[in-house]
Amino acid sequence: MNATLLRSAFYIAAICGIYLAAAMFVPAMVDLYYGNADWQVFALCGFMVGGTSAVTAVAMRGNPPPFSRRLGFFLVNLLWMTFALVGAIPIYLASGELTFAQSLFESVSAITTTGSTVLTGLDQAAPGLLLWRSLLQWMGGIGIVALGLFILPFLRIGGMAFFKMESSDTGDKPFARMASFTRAFLAIYLGITLLCAICYGFAGMSQFDAFNHALTTVATGGFSTHDASFGYFDSPALLWISTFFMTLCSLPFSILILFVVRGRLDSLRDPQIMLFLTYLFVAVFLLSLYISLNDQMDFLTALTQSAFNVSSILSTTGYASTDYSQWGAFAVVLVFFLTFMGGCSGSTAGGIKSYRFLILFNMLRTGMKKLIYPNAVYSIRYGRLSVDSETQRAVSMFFTAYILLWAFGSLGMSLLGYDLITSTTAVLTALSNVGPGLGDIIGPAGNFSTFADPELCLLAIMMLLGRLEILTVVVVLMPMYWRG
Amino acid sequence: MNATLLRSAFYIAAICGIYLAAAMFVPAMVDLYYGNADWQVFALCGFMVGGTSAVTAVAMRGNPPPFSRRLGFFLVNLLWMTFALVGAIPIYLASGELTFAQSLFESVSAITTTGSTVLTGLDQAAPGLLLWRSLLQWMGGIGIVALGLFILPFLRIGGMAFFKMESSDTGDKPFARMASFTRAFLAIYLGITLLCAICYGFAGMSQFDAFNHALTTVATGGFSTHDASFGYFDSPALLWISTFFMTLCSLPFSILILFVVRGRLDSLRDPQIMLFLTYLFVAVFLLSLYISLNDQMDFLTALTQSAFNVSSILSTTGYASTDYSQWGAFAVVLVFFLTFMGGCSGSTAGGIKSYRFLILFNMLRTGMKKLIYPNAVYSIRYGRLSVDSETQRAVSMFFTAYILLWAFGSLGMSLLGYDLITSTTAVLTALSNVGPGLGDIIGPAGNFSTFADPELCLLAIMMLLGRLEILTVVVVLMPMYWRG
Repeated sequence: MNATLLRSAFYIAAICGIYLAAAMFVPAMVDLYYGNADWQVFALCGFMVGGTSAVTAVAMRGNPPPFSRRLGFFLVNLLWMTFALVGAIPIYLASGELTFAQSLFESVSAITTTGSTVLTGLDQAAPGLLLWRSLLQWMGGIGIVALGLFILPFLRIGGMAFFKMESSDTGDKPFARMASFTRAFLAIYLGITLLCAICYGFAGMSQFDAFNHALTTVATGGFSTHDASFGYFDSPALLWISTFFMTLCSLPFSILILFVVRGRLDSLRDPQIMLFLTYLFVAVFLLSLYISLNDQMDFLTALTQSAFNVSSILSTTGYASTDYSQWGAFAVVLVFFLTFMGGCSGSTAGGIKSYRFLILFNMLRTGMKKLIYPNAVYSIRYGRLSVDSETQRAVSMFFTAYILLWAFGSLGMSLLGYDLITSTTAVLTALSNVGPGLGDIIGPAGNFSTFADPELCLLAIMMLLGRLEILTVVVVLMPMYWRG
Repeated sequence: MNATLLRSAFYIAAICGIYLAAAMFVPAMVDLYYGNADWQVFALCGFMVGGTSAVTAVAMRGNPPPFSRRLGFFLVNLLWMTFALVGAIPIYLASGELTFAQSLFESVSAITTTGSTVLTGLDQAAPGLLLWRSLLQWMGGIGIVALGLFILPFLRIGGMAFFKMESSDTGDKPFARMASFTRAFLAIYLGITLLCAICYGFAGMSQFDAFNHALTTVATGGFSTHDASFGYFDSPALLWISTFFMTLCSLPFSILILFVVRGRLDSLRDPQIMLFLTYLFVAVFLLSLYISLNDQMDFLTALTQSAFNVSSILSTTGYASTDYSQWGAFAVVLVFFLTFMGGCSGSTAGGIKSYRFLILFNMLRTGMKKLIYPNAVYSIRYGRLSVDSETQRAVSMFFTAYILLWAFGSLGMSLLGYDLITSTTAVLTALSNVGPGLGDIIGPAGNFSTFADPELCLLAIMMLLGRLEILTVVVVLMPMYWRG
C-alpha cells in the first residue's frame, strides 16, 4: 500500500460521507414536522459530518490511481467502517441512553442490513431516530448490491467472479457502462421501495410505518418501528405483501434490471433463482403442514405465517410476525439451518447464498460420479455454463471459512457467558445478516438490548465479516497485504 | 455389478461372519465361568451364525475377480451391514428386553466404535453381554483401521488417497506386502490393548472391568461396564491412563507401526499429529483454566477432568467422568464444536479428522494469498508434501457432505419431536462416532434408552455413514453405480 492509494481511498470515503451527511437532513425534517427536538441533533450531525467529509475530500483530492484489487480491498473495508461510524453518531446523540458500543452495534446492524436491535420501546421512539435506522439500512442495501455487482467479482471473492464472467461471456451484460447500470439499478431500487410503501399503505399501515418498513423490506434489513415487528399489525394482507417484496429483493438485481428494462422473462431462469425459490417453497410447505397438523392453527393461517417467517429468514430480512420458536421442534431446527442459507448473489440478502449451494451440490454430485468412473471427464454445471476450477475453489473456501468463523465466534460468545443456543445462533444470525436468533434472549420475541458491550462488539465484527463476504476483511488483516 | 462380483463380496462377508461367530464363544465362556445362563445364547448364536456363514462361504466360493473399486464399494457396505446384523442377534437374545431395533442400534454403535448405548443398569448386566459389546467395538476398531489403511485410499474416498500416495512416494511404506502390514498392525493393536488392560488393572479396576475398558479404549469406542462410565471409579490415575491410550489410538496406526518396528521417532512428525495434539492441548488448557477460574475445582483436578473428557471427545471415544455439561457455557459450546473434529486418518477415531482440517486451513491460507497475488503459483502444503488438486477437492467434498448430512439428519430428528440441542447433537455425535450428545436426554449423564425405534434407526444410519466416510455409502445408492 502506498500513500496515493490510501489518499484515493480516503477521498472516496469522504465523498460517501457527504452523501450520508445529506441523508441526515431527512430525519431532521421529519422530526421538525412531528415537533420533536431531535431535529437539532440530526441537523447538527449533518453539518458536522458533511463539513468534515468535505474538508477531507478536498485534502485528499488528487489524480486517482488506476483501480487495483489492492485498493479495492482497502476501500471496501474503509467504506463500511466509515458508514458504521458515521451512522452511529446520530443514534448515540439522539437516543440519549445508548452507550457508544450499543449505537455502533445498531449502526452496523443497519448498514449490513442485519436488523438486530438493542433498542426497546420502538413504538414510543422519536420518528427521526426510527427513520434514520431505516434509511441507513436502505442505503446499506444499495451499498451491498453495488458491492456484489461491481466490486466483489473484480476482487474474486467467494466465487462471485463467476457472475462477472457469465455476463461478459454470453453478451448478456445489460449495460455497457457501469454508470448507466448504476442509474438503472437506483431507479429500480427506488421504484420497488415506493411500490412497496404504497402497497403497505393501502393494506393499512400509517404513512410513517409504510415508508419505514418499505425501506427495510427492500434492503432485506428487518428494522421495524414496533417492538412486535410485523406482529403489531396483525394483518395477513401485510404479511403477504411483505413476503412478496422480501422474496423479490433476494433475487439478483442484475436479473431484475434485465427483466424490467428488456422485458426478458427468460432471464429469470437463472439456476440460483430456481434453487432459491425451490427451497423457499419446500420449507414453507413443510412448515405449514407441520404447524397445521400440530393443531396450532388452520392450514391457511399456517401458510401465511410460514410464508412470511420463512421468507423473512431466507431473504435474511429478520422480521417476525409471531414467536415461531413456539411452533415446535421442527420449526426451531428448520429456522436454525435456514439461517445459514440466504438469498441470491447481487441482491441485498446475506447468508451462504443459493448459487454457492448449487455449485457445492454439483461438485458433490460430480465427485460421486468420478468415484464410479475415475477416468471420465465431467464438468461442474451451473445451468448451461460450466464452472471453472477457480470458482469451485473460491466457493469451497467461502463455505469452510463460514463454518470455521461460526465456530470461533460461538466459542467467543460462550466465554462471555451465553448458553449454547444463544451463542451459536447470535453469531450465526450476525454472520448471515438475518437479525433474530433463537432462545429466550435473542429469539424472535427478544432483542439484543441486554447484551453488554463486549458481545455487541463481537457480533458487530461478525456482521461486517458476513456482509463483506468474510475474505474481503480477512485479506486486509494479513501482513502480506501491506508488504511490497 | 455382475454376479461374479456379488458372489465374491458375499464370500468375503461370509468369511468375516465365521470370525464373528468364533468371537461369540468368548462371552459364552465368560458367562459359563460366572455361572450365567446367557452362555447358551452366545454358544447357540455362535453355532448358528458360524454354520450359516460356512454354508454361504462354500456356496459362494469361486475364482475371485480382480479387486475393483466397484467391488470395493459394495464390499465395504456389505461387510458393515453384516457385522451390524450378526452383532445384534446375541444382544437381542441375551438382553431379553430390547426391541430388535434397539439391539441393532447397540450393535451399530459398537461396530462403528461410537459408544452410544440404549442399555441402562449396566452395573447389573450379565458379563457375557457386556463383554460382547466391548468385543464388537474392539473388532470394529480393527475393521476401521484396515478400511482406512488399505481400502479407502484405494477407493479415493475423502482425500485418503493422499496417504497412499504419501507412503509410496517417499518410500516410507513400512511393509511391502499388505499381509505383513496386517500382521504387524494386529500385533500392535493387541499389544496396546493388553498394555492398557494391565495399566487399568494396576490402577484399581477389577480384571473384568480392566479388560472391557481396554477393548473399548483402544477402539476409541467408549462402551463402559458402568452406567456412570469412568465416573464410577473416581480415580485420577485411571483417568490419566485412559487419556493416554485414547490419545494414542487417535494417531495413525501406520505411523505407530513405523515407530514401533523401526524405532523411528521422526515418523511422529506427521503434520496431522502435530495439529491434532495442538488442538487437544489448547482445548484442555483453555477448559482447565475456565473451570478452575469459575471456582468449581482446583487447577489440578480441572486439568485431569478436562484432559480426560476433551480427549474422550476428540478421540471420538465418548467416555465421561462427570457431567461436563454442568461446567458452564464455554464447556458446552467447546464440546459441541469438538464433536465435529475427530482424530487422525488410519486410526480408530472418527469425525472430520485433523488432516482434513489441515488441508482445508492451508487451502484457505493459500486462497487468501492468491487474492493478493492472483498470478503467483502457490501449492497447498501438507508438511513437506504438496497436496494434489484431487485430494483438495475430495477433502472439500467430504466437509460439505458432512455439514449437509448433519443438517438433514437434525431436521429428521426434530420431526420426531426432539428439541434443537438434542436433535443436532444426536446426529452430530452419531456422524462423528463419538457417543454422548448434549442436553438432558443424551448428554454425558444420559443415554439413548428413551429413544423410540424410528430415531434409533435414523441415528444408526448416521453412525454407519460417518464411519464409512459418507461417500462410500452414498455412492452405492446411486443408480449409476448399478448400471453398465
